[in-house]
Amino acid sequence: MDRPIILGIVGDSAAGKTTLTKGIAQVLGPENVTVICTDDYHRYDRKQRAEIGITALHPDCNYLDIMQQQLLQLRNGLPILKPVYNHATGNLDAPQYIKPNKFVIIEGLLGYSTRKARQCYDVKVYLAPPESLRAKWKVKRDTQKRGYTEEQVLSQLQKREPDSEQFIRPQRQWSDIVISFYPPNDDSEQSNGHLNVRLILRPTIPHPDFIEIVNSGNGNSMSAIRLDLDRDMGKPVDVLEVDGHATLEQVNRLEQIICSDMPHLKNVCDRQSNPDLGKVAGTTGESIQSYPLALTQLLITYHMLKATQTSQEGLQVKV
Amino acid sequence: MDRPIILGIVGDSAAGKTTLTKGIAQVLGPENVTVICTDDYHRYDRKQRAEIGITALHPDCNYLDIMQQQLLQLRNGLPILKPVYNHATGNLDAPQYIKPNKFVIIEGLLGYSTRKARQCYDVKVYLAPPESLRAKWKVKRDTQKRGYTEEQVLSQLQKREPDSEQFIRPQRQWSDIVISFYPPNDDSEQSNGHLNVRLILRPTIPHPDFIEIVNSGNGNSMSAIRLDLDRDMGKPVDVLEVDGHATLEQVNRLEQIICSDMPHLKNVCDRQSNPDLGKVAGTTGESIQSYPLALTQLLITYHMLKATQTSQEGLQVKV
Repeated sequence: MDRPIILGIVGDSAAGKTTLTKGIAQVLGPENVTVICTDDYHRYDRKQRAEIGITALHPDCNYLDIMQQQLLQLRNGLPILKPVYNHATGNLDAPQYIKPNKFVIIEGLLGYSTRKARQCYDVKVYLAPPESLRAKWKVKRDTQKRGYTEEQVLSQLQKREPDSEQFIRPQRQWSDIVISFYPPNDDSEQSNGHLNVRLILRPTIPHPDFIEIVNSGNGNSMSAIRLDLDRDMGKPVDVLEVDGHATLEQVNRLEQIICSDMPHLKNVCDRQSNPDLGKVAGTTGESIQSYPLALTQLLITYHMLKATQTSQEGLQVKV
Repeated sequence: MDRPIILGIVGDSAAGKTTLTKGIAQVLGPENVTVICTDDYHRYDRKQRAEIGITALHPDCNYLDIMQQQLLQLRNGLPILKPVYNHATGNLDAPQYIKPNKFVIIEGLLGYSTRKARQCYDVKVYLAPPESLRAKWKVKRDTQKRGYTEEQVLSQLQKREPDSEQFIRPQRQWSDIVISFYPPNDDSEQSNGHLNVRLILRPTIPHPDFIEIVNSGNGNSMSAIRLDLDRDMGKPVDVLEVDGHATLEQVNRLEQIICSDMPHLKNVCDRQSNPDLGKVAGTTGESIQSYPLALTQLLITYHMLKATQTSQEGLQVKV
């Protein structure tokens, strides 16, 4: 059996992990995708966390050694007995037997926190929306879906900030792609549908050749799609930005660049070149149509398919 | 860290696994021993088993692939998140984080059923009391500790017989030592304290040199301690028998043979050379004093200590 291709989606609470995961699973075909949420590796249930005074963001609050072991098993195509954290009750439930599909998406808070875990991913994504936007998303989700008041959510955010700073955000450095959806002109009241995206492309995986965007003059600072050199955490990166107001024509050109290099993506591109492009369901049930999100999903899918081509060349990862 | 030494104790339901496990843990020091029961790898809870019509003895009723994986992790000194089968409720509970101690005892029904699992043990024991004695033990335990009636237990035994025949008993062939406690003269009403033991010693691990028993004339067919050549499942073995009525002097001589080869065992022998020799608590709380049981425990302990000496020579077992 070919080993599965593993995508990591790491980011702070309410950074958009579930929405992005769902969107990518939709593009790859849900029947081909196994989704694992690392919250399941919590060491303590909700009551114990309150008693101890530890947040779920702290490494000590999670069985990271077991997460790492099970990631390796999945990477080697083996089944796991995954622990289960019940978000509804806050309890730890009986574990679940999981055989990996062709693609595995690991989404969670601390997915890149150990070296051996990081070695298991084919593609590593980090979600970094501006903190103001993340707070807005968290309030919306936790009041609508988890029964908290706005005050409770904001107080939680404040309480968790030291752990976010110490344990979550440093993981950005290990990612191949940093994704930041952001409101144009820092207008956080702008609707989700018109968010821009900034994609930081580290030269740690082979990105499509976007240089044409610059050469065509399309990439100048006034264009809705821009490519620029920059540094992220001190290291050189490409930065690809797509505005929420980009036209279908502009977006299709970018798609073609991505798809031309990847015959298997042709179908996805054809499917996307229609008025429903970028339409996905958000975590709280709302319908989102966003070209920046669609292109982000397409780029990640590109890398997962690319990895299937090269996965047979790599050696099996050992314990 | 040195890798743990792994002892397997396999046998049918109520064959004496827990009593033997407790006795050996007592000799090695309970703080040095991690005990794992493979019942925890049940795939279905009690209700599901009844609905499906499958017994816990059937391989399909257990996550043997996960058992094998976790055995390998333990053998390599790594922690596991072990599933938990709750014997009291029949439910599958939240898993349990376990770091292996210096010694690990794996006791259960299907411990030798896959090749990769078998490779993880340093010492493999199989318990094979006569079926009439096992039935007696099972009735006693399940009526006293699990709330069944005698009729229910006997009906269960009958229902499970085909799976015992097909899946449990064939594992005898993989063991290094087959242990059969049996009543003298086939008198199954005899008290446990006077059971004899028959130890089948396969030349698959280096047993102490018992030949002196034969040479000294002590090993003749009338003696309370006998050594004989035989075949088990068609293959040559030594058979060491110790009668329940053996004297303390006879037993001490056998102990000396075992201990002389193993300086670390000296303390155990000294501790055992007293009137409490072989006193252990049975599963149903009764106190048992049995020289045959004490010698059996000592022999197994010998092999576990022997394995600590050679474990550093062996290569790490790989997935």
